[in-house]
Amino acid sequence: MIRRYVVLAPHAFVQSAKTAHGVIAYGNDPVVAVIDPSCAGKRVCDVVPHLAQCDAPIVASLQEALPFAPSALLIGTAPIGGALDALRDGVLEAIGAGLDVVSGLHTMLAEDAELAHAAHERGVRLYDLRAVPTTPVFRGSAYEVESPILLTVGNDCNVGKMTVSLELCAAARRAQKRWTFVPTGQTGIAIAGWGIAVDRTIADFSAGASERLVLEAAEQRPDAIVVEGQGAINHPAYAPVTLALLYGCAPDALVLVCMPHRTTIKAYATPTLPYRESIRLHEALLASVKPANVIGIALNTRGLDETSARAEIARARAETHLPADDLVRFGADAFYAEIAGSLRKREARTA
Amino acid sequence: MIRRYVVLAPHAFVQSAKTAHGVIAYGNDPVVAVIDPSCAGKRVCDVVPHLAQCDAPIVASLQEALPFAPSALLIGTAPIGGALDALRDGVLEAIGAGLDVVSGLHTMLAEDAELAHAAHERGVRLYDLRAVPTTPVFRGSAYEVESPILLTVGNDCNVGKMTVSLELCAAARRAQKRWTFVPTGQTGIAIAGWGIAVDRTIADFSAGASERLVLEAAEQRPDAIVVEGQGAINHPAYAPVTLALLYGCAPDALVLVCMPHRTTIKAYATPTLPYRESIRLHEALLASVKPANVIGIALNTRGLDETSARAEIARARAETHLPADDLVRFGADAFYAEIAGSLRKREARTA
Repeated sequence: MIRRYVVLAPHAFVQSAKTAHGVIAYGNDPVVAVIDPSCAGKRVCDVVPHLAQCDAPIVASLQEALPFAPSALLIGTAPIGGALDALRDGVLEAIGAGLDVVSGLHTMLAEDAELAHAAHERGVRLYDLRAVPTTPVFRGSAYEVESPILLTVGNDCNVGKMTVSLELCAAARRAQKRWTFVPTGQTGIAIAGWGIAVDRTIADFSAGASERLVLEAAEQRPDAIVVEGQGAINHPAYAPVTLALLYGCAPDALVLVCMPHRTTIKAYATPTLPYRESIRLHEALLASVKPANVIGIALNTRGLDETSARAEIARARAETHLPADDLVRFGADAFYAEIAGSLRKREARTA
Repeated sequence: MIRRYVVLAPHAFVQSAKTAHGVIAYGNDPVVAVIDPSCAGKRVCDVVPHLAQCDAPIVASLQEALPFAPSALLIGTAPIGGALDALRDGVLEAIGAGLDVVSGLHTMLAEDAELAHAAHERGVRLYDLRAVPTTPVFRGSAYEVESPILLTVGNDCNVGKMTVSLELCAAARRAQKRWTFVPTGQTGIAIAGWGIAVDRTIADFSAGASERLVLEAAEQRPDAIVVEGQGAINHPAYAPVTLALLYGCAPDALVLVCMPHRTTIKAYATPTLPYRESIRLHEALLASVKPANVIGIALNTRGLDETSARAEIARARAETHLPADDLVRFGADAFYAEIAGSLRKREARTA
C-alpha cells in the first residue's frame, strides 16, 4: 500500500529532518507536503538542494497540507534521544484529521496512552519504526551466510552510511546484480519497509538483532548483502550500536563513509578519526572475531565546492590506497565496479 | 532490611550459578540454603572450594529448605539470554510459600502475568535486578567527575571482573581509603543493593546508563570509583555492553581481568585476546574519546595448581611490564598498593 506522506518537521526541515530527507530521496511513498512554518511558501527543492527532484510544497500547518490529500503523517525529525516532546500537538492534530502516523522516535507512539486512545477513537494507525522484535542472543549463524556481506561504517552519525548503501544497491541493479539493502535505523526502515532499529534493541541482544537482519536478507540468496551502519566506532554515546553491527552482521568487507570536513563527532568534542586510524581500529576489532577489511572510502562532500571535493577524494585515495569517491555527487557506478571486484567471502575466526 | 536467601539453582549450582556464588562470597544477605538436587545432602563449601566460608546446606527441594527460615528466593543462575524457562515452577512454589523472589534474569518476573498475579495474591514481592530505569543519552558529564575512575575489563565474560572490583574496594578499605564499587550487572546489584544492569539497557542509552552510575557514585566524593566491567571487547554477542561501559564510564584507568587458561570466548570459537593485543585494542578505542591506560592485570588462576598460577602471573608481568596478581588466591593488598600509586585523573578528549 502506497502512503501519501505529509512530513511534520517544524523549524527543522532544512537542518535536521534526516528521516524525511531519506524518504524523499529514496522511498517509494510520495511526500505531498511538508509542515515547517520556518520555510512555509517554498518548495522542498528550493530549500534542500540535493532534493532537487522534489517539488512538494512546504506549508505552515496541517490545515494547509490537507488539500494535497495526504494519507499519513511522517514525523520527519530524529532529535537526539528521540523524544516526543514538542511534536505531540501536531501528532494529535493529524490523528484528528484521520491520518495514520509513522514515527521513528524512541518514544513509542503506540505506548502513549493519549495518542493510542486518540488513534483508536479515530480509527487510524500508529506505526513506530523503532519498535523492535524480541531477538535471540548472537549465535554465529551469520557466519554461514553464503552471500558476501558488506557493512558501511562511518566517521560520525548522519554522514551518509544509509545513502551509500542504497546507492550501491542501485548501482548493482544497473549492473544486473542483486545487492540487498539491510535497514538498521528508522529512516532505512521507512524506505525499505522492513528492518530493525538496532539502536533500540536491548544491548545484550543488539548483535543478535543484527544477525537476524542478515539472515533474513540471505534468504533470497542475493549477490551481496549491504548493511546500513550506525554511529561511529568512537562515538561516545552510540558506538555500542556500531559495534553490535560490526560483530553481529559478520561482514566480509567494510566501506568507510566519511564527511571529510566533519572534524568532531556531532554534539561532542571527540575528534573524528583520520582514515587510516579508523581503518586500523575497525580491522583490529574484527581481527579475532571475523576478519574483514575496509575496501573503499565513500565521501560525503556536501558543502564543499567541486575543486575541494575532488581534492578530498584524491586525498582519501592517496592516504588509504583504496577506491574513494562521492557516490551522490559524482555517481556510484565507478565506485560500485571497483568494490564489487574486491568483495568476497571471508572466514569467521582466526586459525 | 536483611534477606535470608534460599538459592534456586537446579542442576547448576556448582557450574553456572554465578549470581549465587557472588552473593555468597560478597553479599550482606546470608544464604541459608541452596536448592540443587544434583548435589543435595552436601554443603556449599563441599562443592565450591572457593566458597569455603559458607556451610549452608544444599537440598533437593524448597520444602527441605523451609526449615532454615528463608525470607526470599534468589534465582542463582544466569543462563545465556537470561530466559525464565525451566525455573517457573520453582518460582511459583516459592511464592506459594510466602517468599519474595529476587531475579537477575532478562525475563522480568514482574511483567509475567502468572507470576505477578501469584505474588500479588500471596502478598510477596518480585525484585527484578535487571529492570532498568530510563536514562538519558551519554552527555559527557562523567568527564567532570573529580574522583579517579577505574574500570575493569576482561578477556571474557565470567572471569572475575566483579570479584576484582570488590576485592580492590575491600583492600582500599583496609588501607583507610574509600573506593566505591559500581555494580553494572545483576550479581553486583544483588550484592551492593544498587546499580543498573547495563546489558539490559536500550543500546542508544547504554553509555548514558553507564555515565549515570558513575555520577551517582561520585556524589559521595570517594577516593576512587571502581566500575565492574562486562563481557569482553571481542565478545561476538556482548561486546556492545563492554564498549558502552568503556566510553560511558569515562575511566581514567583500566584493570584487565583475565582467566589465562580461557583460550576461546565461552560458547563461541572466537579466541580470547593475548594481553598486549587486548591492551592495545582498549587503549586505541579510548584514545580519541578519553585516553586511559591499562594499569594492571588481575588474573583468575582458578583451576591451575600453585606453580602454574605463579608462572602465569610472572608471564603477565613479563609480557606487559604491569602489576599482575591473582587477588583472590594471593591477596589483594599488594596489587591494590601498586595500582593505587598509578591511578590518576586523565583529561577527556585529545588536544
